[in-house]
Amino acid sequence: MTQPFPFTAIVGQDEMKQALVLTAIDPGIGGVLIFGDRGTGKSTAVRALAALLPSIEAVDGCPYNCATLPGTCPHCAQHPGKSLKSRPAPVIDLPLGATEDRVTGALDIERALTQGEKAFEPGLLARANRGYLYIDEANLLEDHIVDLLLDVAQSGVNVVEREGLSIRHDARFVLVGSGNPEEGELRPQLLDRFGLSVDVGSPSDIGQRVEVIKRRDAYETDKAAFMKRWRAQDTKLRKAILAARATLADIKTPDDVLEDCARLCVALGSDGLRGELTLLRTARALAAFQGDTALNRTHIARIAPAALSHRLRRDPLDDAGSALRVERAVAELFG
Amino acid sequence: MTQPFPFTAIVGQDEMKQALVLTAIDPGIGGVLIFGDRGTGKSTAVRALAALLPSIEAVDGCPYNCATLPGTCPHCAQHPGKSLKSRPAPVIDLPLGATEDRVTGALDIERALTQGEKAFEPGLLARANRGYLYIDEANLLEDHIVDLLLDVAQSGVNVVEREGLSIRHDARFVLVGSGNPEEGELRPQLLDRFGLSVDVGSPSDIGQRVEVIKRRDAYETDKAAFMKRWRAQDTKLRKAILAARATLADIKTPDDVLEDCARLCVALGSDGLRGELTLLRTARALAAFQGDTALNRTHIARIAPAALSHRLRRDPLDDAGSALRVERAVAELFG
Amino acid sequence: MTQPFPFTAIVGQDEMKQALVLTAIDPGIGGVLIFGDRGTGKSTAVRALAALLPSIEAVDGCPYNCATLPGTCPHCAQHPGKSLKSRPAPVIDLPLGATEDRVTGALDIERALTQGEKAFEPGLLARANRGYLYIDEANLLEDHIVDLLLDVAQSGVNVVEREGLSIRHDARFVLVGSGNPEEGELRPQLLDRFGLSVDVGSPSDIGQRVEVIKRRDAYETDKAAFMKRWRAQDTKLRKAILAARATLADIKTPDDVLEDCARLCVALGSDGLRGELTLLRTARALAAFQGDTALNRTHIARIAPAALSHRLRRDPLDDAGSALRVERAVAELFG
Amino acid sequence: MTQPFPFTAIVGQDEMKQALVLTAIDPGIGGVLIFGDRGTGKSTAVRALAALLPSIEAVDGCPYNCATLPGTCPHCAQHPGKSLKSRPAPVIDLPLGATEDRVTGALDIERALTQGEKAFEPGLLARANRGYLYIDEANLLEDHIVDLLLDVAQSGVNVVEREGLSIRHDARFVLVGSGNPEEGELRPQLLDRFGLSVDVGSPSDIGQRVEVIKRRDAYETDKAAFMKRWRAQDTKLRKAILAARATLADIKTPDDVLEDCARLCVALGSDGLRGELTLLRTARALAAFQGDTALNRTHIARIAPAALSHRLRRDPLDDAGSALRVERAVAELFG
Amino acid sequence: MTQPFPFTAIVGQDEMKQALVLTAIDPGIGGVLIFGDRGTGKSTAVRALAALLPSIEAVDGCPYNCATLPGTCPHCAQHPGKSLKSRPAPVIDLPLGATEDRVTGALDIERALTQGEKAFEPGLLARANRGYLYIDEANLLEDHIVDLLLDVAQSGVNVVEREGLSIRHDARFVLVGSGNPEEGELRPQLLDRFGLSVDVGSPSDIGQRVEVIKRRDAYETDKAAFMKRWRAQDTKLRKAILAARATLADIKTPDDVLEDCARLCVALGSDGLRGELTLLRTARALAAFQGDTALNRTHIARIAPAALSHRLRRDPLDDAGSALRVERAVAELFG
Amino acid sequence: MTQPFPFTAIVGQDEMKQALVLTAIDPGIGGVLIFGDRGTGKSTAVRALAALLPSIEAVDGCPYNCATLPGTCPHCAQHPGKSLKSRPAPVIDLPLGATEDRVTGALDIERALTQGEKAFEPGLLARANRGYLYIDEANLLEDHIVDLLLDVAQSGVNVVEREGLSIRHDARFVLVGSGNPEEGELRPQLLDRFGLSVDVGSPSDIGQRVEVIKRRDAYETDKAAFMKRWRAQDTKLRKAILAARATLADIKTPDDVLEDCARLCVALGSDGLRGELTLLRTARALAAFQGDTALNRTHIARIAPAALSHRLRRDPLDDAGSALRVERAVAELFG
Repeated sequence: MTQPFPFTAIVGQDEMKQALVLTAIDPGIGGVLIFGDRGTGKSTAVRALAALLPSIEAVDGCPYNCATLPGTCPHCAQHPGKSLKSRPAPVIDLPLGATEDRVTGALDIERALTQGEKAFEPGLLARANRGYLYIDEANLLEDHIVDLLLDVAQSGVNVVEREGLSIRHDARFVLVGSGNPEEGELRPQLLDRFGLSVDVGSPSDIGQRVEVIKRRDAYETDKAAFMKRWRAQDTKLRKAILAARATLADIKTPDDVLEDCARLCVALGSDGLRGELTLLRTARALAAFQGDTALNRTHIARIAPAALSHRLRRDPLDDAGSALRVERAVAELFG
Repeated sequence: MTQPFPFTAIVGQDEMKQALVLTAIDPGIGGVLIFGDRGTGKSTAVRALAALLPSIEAVDGCPYNCATLPGTCPHCAQHPGKSLKSRPAPVIDLPLGATEDRVTGALDIERALTQGEKAFEPGLLARANRGYLYIDEANLLEDHIVDLLLDVAQSGVNVVEREGLSIRHDARFVLVGSGNPEEGELRPQLLDRFGLSVDVGSPSDIGQRVEVIKRRDAYETDKAAFMKRWRAQDTKLRKAILAARATLADIKTPDDVLEDCARLCVALGSDGLRGELTLLRTARALAAFQGDTALNRTHIARIAPAALSHRLRRDPLDDAGSALRVERAVAELFG
Repeated sequence: MTQPFPFTAIVGQDEMKQALVLTAIDPGIGGVLIFGDRGTGKSTAVRALAALLPSIEAVDGCPYNCATLPGTCPHCAQHPGKSLKSRPAPVIDLPLGATEDRVTGALDIERALTQGEKAFEPGLLARANRGYLYIDEANLLEDHIVDLLLDVAQSGVNVVEREGLSIRHDARFVLVGSGNPEEGELRPQLLDRFGLSVDVGSPSDIGQRVEVIKRRDAYETDKAAFMKRWRAQDTKLRKAILAARATLADIKTPDDVLEDCARLCVALGSDGLRGELTLLRTARALAAFQGDTALNRTHIARIAPAALSHRLRRDPLDDAGSALRVERAVAELFG
Repeated sequence: MTQPFPFTAIVGQDEMKQALVLTAIDPGIGGVLIFGDRGTGKSTAVRALAALLPSIEAVDGCPYNCATLPGTCPHCAQHPGKSLKSRPAPVIDLPLGATEDRVTGALDIERALTQGEKAFEPGLLARANRGYLYIDEANLLEDHIVDLLLDVAQSGVNVVEREGLSIRHDARFVLVGSGNPEEGELRPQLLDRFGLSVDVGSPSDIGQRVEVIKRRDAYETDKAAFMKRWRAQDTKLRKAILAARATLADIKTPDDVLEDCARLCVALGSDGLRGELTLLRTARALAAFQGDTALNRTHIARIAPAALSHRLRRDPLDDAGSALRVERAVAELFG
Repeated sequence: MTQPFPFTAIVGQDEMKQALVLTAIDPGIGGVLIFGDRGTGKSTAVRALAALLPSIEAVDGCPYNCATLPGTCPHCAQHPGKSLKSRPAPVIDLPLGATEDRVTGALDIERALTQGEKAFEPGLLARANRGYLYIDEANLLEDHIVDLLLDVAQSGVNVVEREGLSIRHDARFVLVGSGNPEEGELRPQLLDRFGLSVDVGSPSDIGQRVEVIKRRDAYETDKAAFMKRWRAQDTKLRKAILAARATLADIKTPDDVLEDCARLCVALGSDGLRGELTLLRTARALAAFQGDTALNRTHIARIAPAALSHRLRRDPLDDAGSALRVERAVAELFG
Repeated sequence: MTQPFPFTAIVGQDEMKQALVLTAIDPGIGGVLIFGDRGTGKSTAVRALAALLPSIEAVDGCPYNCATLPGTCPHCAQHPGKSLKSRPAPVIDLPLGATEDRVTGALDIERALTQGEKAFEPGLLARANRGYLYIDEANLLEDHIVDLLLDVAQSGVNVVEREGLSIRHDARFVLVGSGNPEEGELRPQLLDRFGLSVDVGSPSDIGQRVEVIKRRDAYETDKAAFMKRWRAQDTKLRKAILAARATLADIKTPDDVLEDCARLCVALGSDGLRGELTLLRTARALAAFQGDTALNRTHIARIAPAALSHRLRRDPLDDAGSALRVERAVAELFG
């Protein structure tokens, strides 16, 4: 797991890469869902993301990645007098069979039994705080874990109450999920929780495939040499992300762009209002990444498929994929 | 969860807002059920309600929200000599996967093992006493939890008997449930337990949608500023609720209004007599809120859809929604 | 649960009220099953019954309601030297989700662990001894609890054998069950165990409905005043029950009445002989309540629907309800 | 459960009474299965049987009913120096929901934990040794309990091996089962284990029904008086059983009767050879009861329906009940 | 279970008796599966086998039946200095509901808790070592127990690893299973594990049936006398088995007989090569039993139905039973 | 399990033997899946493989097979100062019913309880490190075990986090699975994880079958003699494997061969890019085994069926087996 494949060495897959970059600029966009068959590099991309992310400042030794002094978590409360240190932004795997205890954290039974005190063992949600939580094959996740993730993803807080112990800690993270559309559908509530969705596939162009194999073969044959070759490009992208974060709050939002968002969502019949809000935030991140100072219709059009295609209802009279339906609506409305 | 969206800043959704206000005036009306698709702001509204409710007087430090001195709960019995203090009225979430122990409270196993004494750890029902218990996606709730809620909601008392421990404490609360009609039906017994039901939907008017997005975007961008802007309106509504509570007991109930209630329920074929009783109490709360001194037919007509539409049987020959059927019956009977 | 609605203040529902009164006169009749939709006042009636029943004499402090000195239960064996005291006849709720341990009683695990002794924690069956056991929604009861109730209801004794502990105590009670015929059928064995069955429904007469609402509204508005208004009538009925009990053993049973019972049961094709025996006992209780000294055909005819309608087999060629079929058979045979 | 209804006071039901008497004479016949609807007096008959059975001699205080000195059970091994005493032959109920531990006996967990020794708590199989084990509604018994009963009924020995404890004790008993043919079939292996089967039903003759009600009413009104009235007849039957037991070993078995048995079974196509062996033993018990000294064809004919009807395969071309098919085969073969 | 029915007193059933004798000569043949309806004497035959088997030499007191000094089992490791003693070859019942712990052996929890040491409680597989493991109604065996048996039967070793304890002991036994073809099929893997299979049925000849009943009746009436009468014949058969074992290794195997085996299996389309190997070993045991010195085609033909019929695939175009199909193939190939 | 059948004595089955040899040369190819009916020698081959593999150097006494000094596993951390020793490469069976704890390792509960310390009991994944993990009947494996294997097989690391214990150790192994295509399909994810797949069957040639039986019979009759006869050939093959390993890194990979791989995979429509990478590595292993210095099209063609046939989608219009479809595509593309 050390030395993942470099993000910038991924051949093609531009939609996926853009979605990951934009949520790295504004984690508030709310997660990325990647659809695709086996072997299309979904998990490679997510692991590559880990090396790309700017590091975070956190309380030294804090397993909850507390951002401020004093830390607000149960650990910091018992270990005062620490300072902030830089650490890599976490990218945490949620294994398919993970128990609820492992996800939320749990009472440390052994300490309870041997030392007679209630101690909390933080779980994956704690470790993912301020980073990414990755769910491979999200469509196979058990329902009660989905419920739990939805609760925490919405509130940004993990509350564990068990046997007289009440723990509450920050758990703000970006959900990244991969799914194979052939193996079961995602519950609409979980779909809706992801800000963006993208499709990936295997390239059918022989030259591109050979390039993929060559890079992969080179990486497997001599990881260190390969990493070195791509480091500069990864670093450049990381800096661009940091720059975009700095200008994000200053992007202007003209009223007619808001109206464009609303009209697009009404035309597509997407449920509720999360579509509009996601369009808005994602377009702002794109504008910042491109160095623009105000939102315009082009930004909306560019990111609309990723922001809306997973929020459409099935249309039995329209065989087109949902991304295509979004593009057609964009074309009709915006000309 | 701190700083929920202000109640009065919710755009539209008048039926839902009225239902929440009326049950805040008279909690005896019995709970509100909100039907609607994802993203229509159901849970936003409930969390907004928390900030609107008048605070309650409770025994200092009592986890059961005891209202009187001396408190009658197990905790107060062991901690005498406290005084009453003001605290926010509780709005408690009932998570989908909550265990029975978490809902009703349970024996504190650790204290039993380490200190050899039976101690009761109060549950969500204790914390919700004198406030609201919110069930998101109530149609997904497990049957045995529903049974338990029905028992307690009816008696206002939570009785826990386990391993020689017998605990009994007040648990009077208003159930607020949200449900998505596409994801499974509610058991009729649970439906019947809610006093009022309302439907919510996404606005299709572009202007209204833009207004929703603007307010929501403003709230997410700078919560503190947004809250400040709306505080006065929330406070005004809270005072109106307190004023209505003060006059509620004095509302007159003419006999012909009682007869109107009975005729309306017979015409609609609603089961049992809870329909009439709910019509009566809700109409009284409306009258008090409007500053009227006696019930009249207009009050009944106004709140009949919310009070009765979830008590109708399916009519296979009538495709109309149940709220519409109530309105038609009102029109026919009352002209 | 204190101050239930007064029994005599119940509007209409004469069949149900008669069945409850007759089993109060002779608990040997064997329980009452009340069928009806939600909201028709079934549980109100049962809770009202609690206040109506004559009190019982029991050993002071005995959780098994022992009737004689010395008591025969495990508790009395360990607490000699008590006297008899008057206490209300118990009306115990059997909650839908009750575990077998809660129903039958169980070993007190804590005392076993901490004090090294086997102590028995009596269950609902102990508390219901000499009173009523009420099962709301009896058709939803789990099978193994039904089995257990059938065993105990037949033998009048609860035997608990667990981990070397063998407890045996009296458990004589009248089963009162309510059921909604739309939500699942009762097992024939359980049906057969009830002496009487009645149907209840909502009144369709507007005047009667208004009267129901008025009384209910008055009760909810000021319980104390309402209770006071009806106390005299409840007391009068209780005295009539006590008087009927005193004369019950002296009611004469002419042979032709026995033959009437047998002919009626054969004509209806009711299984087994419990039908005849129930007809006999119920008719005797009615005769005693009416002050008559001997059974006659009129008594049989009056109580036959309640005693027999739940013992008929489905007749696919006869759409009539079973109570109607009993009435027709009575009319044909007795003219 | 004290003072069951007297066996000889049962009206009619001659087949059932004969089957119970013959297995009381020779328990090796192997149990009786009683088919009939609810209320036809099946369990009354079995409880009546308890009072009829001759008492047994057993080691004083032995919970396994050991017949000889020294006893061979785990209890007798630890409590030497006892003498034999007379006790009633056991008739043990096997409740429907009984756990395997309760049936076979189990480790006494409490003594294991508190005293550090392995003690065996005998189960229902121990208590039924040398008597009867009664299964009400045998068709509802769980499969693993059936397996266990079949093992023990075949070997006459109960072997319990659990956590290093190995217990082995005699468990010879007669299975008596009642079943309602409308509520599920018995597994053929269990059917085959019963020696005899009989059908019972409600009488349709009015006079007989009135007689049944009268006796039952008299019994319930004043048990002591009723018991006294029938005691002499029960005692007379018990003595006849004892007399028949004494002569059983001396009954002659002519070869042509053996051949009759074989021909009857082949003609009926009954599986295996248990049919013949049961015919033989039952006919011998009948001969002894009637005071005959040798078997003849009349004895075989008399008991063939009870011994064979539950061993027939379904014949799709023959609608007749299986008892009738046996009678027809008897008539054809024996003329 | 003492004094089973004598093997040589079994009337008819020659195929079954031959299969049991041949696997007693060479346990490497791999078990016998006996198909037949209830009551055809399957379990009688297996219990009879127990008395027939030559005894084995085993380490005194060893619960694993260790054959050599020093023993290789966990018990012998802790109890050195023992000598070899003769004991009956074990015939162990595998009860239908046996848990995995009971079959494989398990940690002795009590000793672990009270004495703080890990002790292994050997299971049925240990007790069956060097003998027979009998599964009555093998088609009802649970899948995970089947898996476990297949593993051990293949390797001859039972490995138990649990909570840090690793036990390994010999478990070489012959599986004998009985099955009722009407009650569920055997998994092909389990079928394949049995060396031989035979069908048994009830005799339809009256004389033979009478003989069966007479012997059985005599056995049940006076076991000791009956055993004595047949002892000599059982002893003679046991000696013949021992003689055949002694010559088994010297039986010659001509190449054309090997080719016969292969051609027969190919003609029948039996899966894999276990068919040929079983034909070979079984024919050698037969040759040794008959006193022959070399294999010939007659030996193969004689045992082919037992060795192959359970290895055929269903042939939808051939209604004949599989034994018959084997016989036809033998006739065609060998003339 | 000692003395498995010699690998080189296996008759025929060349595809399977080649696949096992190539993965022994380069374990990075990723496992072999063997499809075939019962009795075709699948598990014999895998056990034979154990004796063929070159031994490994590992830290003395290390249960995780650590390859370097100091070892990196939890055991080596606590036992420093060891040296490297040669041991057989592990071939570990994963039993069908293995629990997750047994596979991944688990907390040693006993030591935790008695010594108050957390100790990790390594599981099958630890024991398989640097060797083979064999799954017999892989299509019957439980889903959660499959998930776990997929995670570990991909990362080469086993991470166990339980009750405050966090263990992380190398677990690099080659999966070898056998499966019967008639008994349930493999999940595509698991299929994809195997580098190669081959079909095996029973020979239909009589001479070859006789040869198989002869060798097998000789092996079973006198294992030691048979092993001795084949040892030289096994040793020769092992040396060839070692030689191929030494030259593997030097095999040249011309660009047109990469293009061949890509074109073949696109033509077959195999999902993702694992097909190409596997073709590449397997062909290199073959080249090394054959003493070639550069890859060419012949190598690709030779191993393409084994590398690709389990990665094809079902083609409803093409009845041919997938190996045949690969061969046809090879023929078309490469001429």
